[in-house]
Amino acid sequence: MDRCVVLLSGGLDSATAAAVAKSRDFSIFALTFVYGQRHDIEVEFARKIANFLHVASHQVINLPDSLFKSSSLIRNSGKEILNNYADSIPTTYVPARNIVFLSMALAYAETIGATHIFIGVNAVDYSGYPDCRPEFIESFQRVIATGTKTGVEGKPIVIETPLILLTKGQIIQLGTSLGVDYSLTSSCYNPFPGGKPCGLCDSCKIRKKGFEEAGLIDPALQR
Amino acid sequence: MDRCVVLLSGGLDSATAAAVAKSRDFSIFALTFVYGQRHDIEVEFARKIANFLHVASHQVINLPDSLFKSSSLIRNSGKEILNNYADSIPTTYVPARNIVFLSMALAYAETIGATHIFIGVNAVDYSGYPDCRPEFIESFQRVIATGTKTGVEGKPIVIETPLILLTKGQIIQLGTSLGVDYSLTSSCYNPFPGGKPCGLCDSCKIRKKGFEEAGLIDPALQR
Repeated sequence: MDRCVVLLSGGLDSATAAAVAKSRDFSIFALTFVYGQRHDIEVEFARKIANFLHVASHQVINLPDSLFKSSSLIRNSGKEILNNYADSIPTTYVPARNIVFLSMALAYAETIGATHIFIGVNAVDYSGYPDCRPEFIESFQRVIATGTKTGVEGKPIVIETPLILLTKGQIIQLGTSLGVDYSLTSSCYNPFPGGKPCGLCDSCKIRKKGFEEAGLIDPALQR
Repeated sequence: MDRCVVLLSGGLDSATAAAVAKSRDFSIFALTFVYGQRHDIEVEFARKIANFLHVASHQVINLPDSLFKSSSLIRNSGKEILNNYADSIPTTYVPARNIVFLSMALAYAETIGATHIFIGVNAVDYSGYPDCRPEFIESFQRVIATGTKTGVEGKPIVIETPLILLTKGQIIQLGTSLGVDYSLTSSCYNPFPGGKPCGLCDSCKIRKKGFEEAGLIDPALQR
């Protein structure tokens, strides 16, 4: 089996991206990051999804929150989350987050001989983060071609973004068709203990819209 | 003073790049990485250089060696260093190393409001690593433009590579003119305890050639 690295946050999108990788018969090496996020309960959900999908390996990596703490999503930022879905780049933007995550996935992929990296970025029903858009992914692909051994040797590792142009409803339909159990995911930026979503943050709003579009009930609401 | 992030390894090049940043009146926020490298004694030298240059901040970040351990430069790789300077990409190539380091420098720069990142890459007297070349830096600059908040707002953080087209001798002359004390640096991949260089590895050979070109004695040889 070919190997891939999957960036697994514990949220709905990355669980779906992982399921797509599995449906394509990849052996999955998952990475999850702890970087000071308020909603680090998502790491528990990442473990649940990793078990559910029988990944080959799941590694949780700690990064210092000092790198990211201008974001209101960081617990020690001293900032409050302001919700402004679709207005502009929100305060929950985490500096260079997907650049950091992809770069570490890339190192790991080259180390283990993986050919692909799966990331659940989405540029349709999203929070306006620049590092979720096709032009960003294309530019990172160029970094892989110029900056890695396998890249300059003509076998660049490929970033797979199976969700990038889907609506949230389509993502949920896709995942459901692949058997994803969305009760094992958490999207909320500010969940109650135990993982019950707040229902108010941008991420909860986008998820709610998605389940409505898909005509399904979100099992996370029953926590 | 404007802020910059400097990637400081403890080696000759990054010490010189940091001195260039200082000469341009930046307030320096230095990052050093521990990633399982055999020559982690370089981290002690990074601390010495950081003190010598009176940086505003110096942070040492630990990364798991599992991401990098296909490289012979990683202590737990189970591989030996083969020296093949200028032949091809050597076994000491560390997967995506500068991509990982630059991405974390980028996150940090955006978080602290730094406008520039200094990195001591060099594409003349170097080991053939793809992530030291101008085409790589240019492609990473495009990632900054497309993937960060400050980038899409039209104020992309700038990667500064003041050494990229210099010979090793020119780098040493530049650093010497800026007052760099090269006794506070370590370049060897496989140093003796205390930091005495092996004299045999690619990095020692390139350094030796540089000091000869510059017409100077390498103070590291007196350890």
